[in-house]
Order: sequence, then C-alpha cells, then structure tokens
Amino acid sequence: MHLARVIGDVVATHKDENLVGIKLLVLQPLTPERANAGRTLVAADAIGAGVGEEVFFVRGKEATFPFYPVEPPVDASIVGIVDHWNVEK
Amino acid sequence: MHLARVIGDVVATHKDENLVGIKLLVLQPLTPERANAGRTLVAADAIGAGVGEEVFFVRGKEATFPFYPVEPPVDASIVGIVDHWNVEK
Amino acid sequence: MHLARVIGDVVATHKDENLVGIKLLVLQPLTPERANAGRTLVAADAIGAGVGEEVFFVRGKEATFPFYPVEPPVDASIVGIVDHWNVEK
Amino acid sequence: MHLARVIGDVVATHKDENLVGIKLLVLQPLTPERANAGRTLVAADAIGAGVGEEVFFVRGKEATFPFYPVEPPVDASIVGIVDHWNVEK
Amino acid sequence: MHLARVIGDVVATHKDENLVGIKLLVLQPLTPERANAGRTLVAADAIGAGVGEEVFFVRGKEATFPFYPVEPPVDASIVGIVDHWNVEK
Repeated sequence: MHLARVIGDVVATHKDENLVGIKLLVLQPLTPERANAGRTLVAADAIGAGVGEEVFFVRGKEATFPFYPVEPPVDASIVGIVDHWNVEK
Repeated sequence: MHLARVIGDVVATHKDENLVGIKLLVLQPLTPERANAGRTLVAADAIGAGVGEEVFFVRGKEATFPFYPVEPPVDASIVGIVDHWNVEK
Repeated sequence: MHLARVIGDVVATHKDENLVGIKLLVLQPLTPERANAGRTLVAADAIGAGVGEEVFFVRGKEATFPFYPVEPPVDASIVGIVDHWNVEK
Repeated sequence: MHLARVIGDVVATHKDENLVGIKLLVLQPLTPERANAGRTLVAADAIGAGVGEEVFFVRGKEATFPFYPVEPPVDASIVGIVDHWNVEK
Repeated sequence: MHLARVIGDVVATHKDENLVGIKLLVLQPLTPERANAGRTLVAADAIGAGVGEEVFFVRGKEATFPFYPVEPPVDASIVGIVDHWNVEK
C-alpha cells in the first residue's frame, strides 16, 4: 500500500455498469515526509474519503475486495484514512 | 486507474480467439494537467470509446471483468469516458 | 498490452514441466513510432510468432489464459501479430 | 520478493473492516548492499516484525495469502525476518 | 519473464509457514547482452538453480504455480535454467 493525499475527483457518466455508484478520486502518492512520490492516479473510494485527506490505497485485484460480492473493474482503491504515521530513518 | 487520451488503434488479424471482436486502442496516459504521463499502451475498449476522447483505464486481471464470462487475454481496458475532473493542488 | 518486435528466442532444457512445448521469445517493446520502449523481456508465444515480427503482448496472470486449461508459470505472452496501427498525436 | 528495513508504522482508525487488527508498517526497500532501493511503501505485517528489523516482503495478491481465509485488501506483506544474506557479484 | 543471474541467497528462520523448505535466491536481472537490467530481487527457486547460473524467472501470482497445491506467499520464482539465447537486433 502507499500513502497519498486526495487531490480531486473524476466525473464519468458513461462507464462500466459495475462502476456506477463508486466515487472516483484523484490521488497524489506521498513519501513519509509528505513529498510527492510519483504520478497521480485515479482510485475507487472504499472508505468515504474526501479531498484534502491523507489516506492509504491498495493496488491490483485486491482493490476490488472492499466491493465484494461486486467485482468492479478497478485497480486501485482507498482502504483507510490515515490518523498519523511514525518513521525513523 | 489512470486518465488517458485515445490516440489510435491497432489492427491485428491473427490473434488469440478470445480477442476477436474486441477493439484495441492506443492510449496516451495523462496527468490531471493533460501532460503526457509515461508511455503509450494498447487497451481493450470495454465502453465504446473513440480516438480523441479522454478516458480512464484499468490494468491487470481486472481489465477482463467487463468481458465476463469471456476472459480475454488483456491487461488494460478502457472502462469509462471522462466528462471532467477537478483537482486541487 | 504493449507493442513489441520479436528479436530472439530462449532455449532452456531444464524448466518447469508446464513450460515444456511453449516457445519462449525475446521481445523489444516499441513506441507507436517504433522506437524502443524500455527493456526487453521474455514472453511465451501463444500465437505462432517469429523473429522480426511486430506483435502485441499481455502481462500478468492473463498471460496464462491462452494456454487454458494448463496454467504455465508465465507472466507475459504474445497474443496477436500486428497488421498495422494508426496513431494521431 | 524484496529485502527491506522496517522504518515506521501507520495508524488508521477508519479503514476497511478486513484490515482491523493487521499491523501496517512502513518499509524502505534495500539493495543487497543495504542502500535504499526505491520508494518506501506500507506493508501488512504477517510475521511479527518491528521497526529496525530487516525483512523481505511480497507484493500483489500473494500478500493476502498469510491472512487466509480472510482476504484483506493489502498488496504488500512482510513474510519473513532475514537472518542474513550472501551475495557474490 | 526476465533473464537473470543468480547472485546469492537469503537465510530467514522466522517466516511464513508456507515458505518453509523453499530456497530463496537473490537475482540480478540481465539484458540479452548480459548487462545488469535494474534492481536485484529475491525469488523462490522452483527448479533447483544455484549461484552463478543464468535463469529466467516469472513474477506475480504465476510465481506460485510451480508449488501447487501449496500457495506460498511469493511474487517471483525461478522457473527455468537457460541453456542459451539468440537475439537479433
């Protein structure tokens, strides 16, 4: 999983039927020092996150697990809102 | 998922039988600012997209979900046409 | 999926038993302009491709689909020979 | 799999229900010479690792296997604590 | 799949129970010209490879196939020892 900040959302009327009702958010991955860590991506919101929040997301088929028994065609999902993290270097 | 612009298509007569009838499009991934974000790729069209449109696509085994119960050997599929997106930085 | 040119083959006598009889080809991924796009890889041939041909290949578990019901331990397979592609930039 | 050092942890109260009770650790991937090898990530702890330990982790759906029969939405898990490694160059 | 040279091994006493008895080797991926191709990784040995040998390995869930019916939490496995390869550029 990776840390990220929610920086936006995507609106799409015409989409796969299993995506209907799923909120699509734009994420900026973060380093533990809150620097940008690579490119933005679009993730399904499985947890009720909003713009500006720090979250962690999961990639791959595991991104569909929170939506079980539906299997939406998503490859990234927000699965937690971060309270804080602690890092020793 | 990632944002992308459809920039072309691929014609292949000789291919896996489960790919017959699936349109193959060339995608240029985009940043939220519409700059190119990495290399182009070939994606299956699950939604009826065309050249010039802005879409989002899914990677991995999830790319086969829209074609269920057929499981074509694809690792990227267009699953939505984007109306617009909003990003705060 | 990605476009590629077949540039060679790999000979391995001692290998997983589910790989016996599968041709292993070396691929150079290509941009739509036919420039090299990243590192070479080894792919299973699911379509009867040969050195010098332009193909497209699939990555991940989907690479095993053409060999069903056998599930060989492969993570990349050639699934089509390209006739041509069209790209607008 | 990759070698890594555990450098921190993540606290998240609001998360997917299948993540409850799973410790989330921050990993710094390492080269065999113990240099940093790319970006940090967040991994589920399947083995009882702690900050400062050298471990190896697995990515992808395989990261869920240690938690069977639960399938938490994780894409990276620590599956071993390293005693030592030997490398000839 | 990718070509690689086996350059070492990893010793881990405390690990996931499905990893017990599986040899863990350190791989240096190679280009067809035998230059280093990216970072080293740790792979499960499914074929009886040893340090110094040239092999090819598979990534992802497919890396567990050689160990069937056990599903060890591995994301890379050596599945063949290379006799030789031929590449035309």
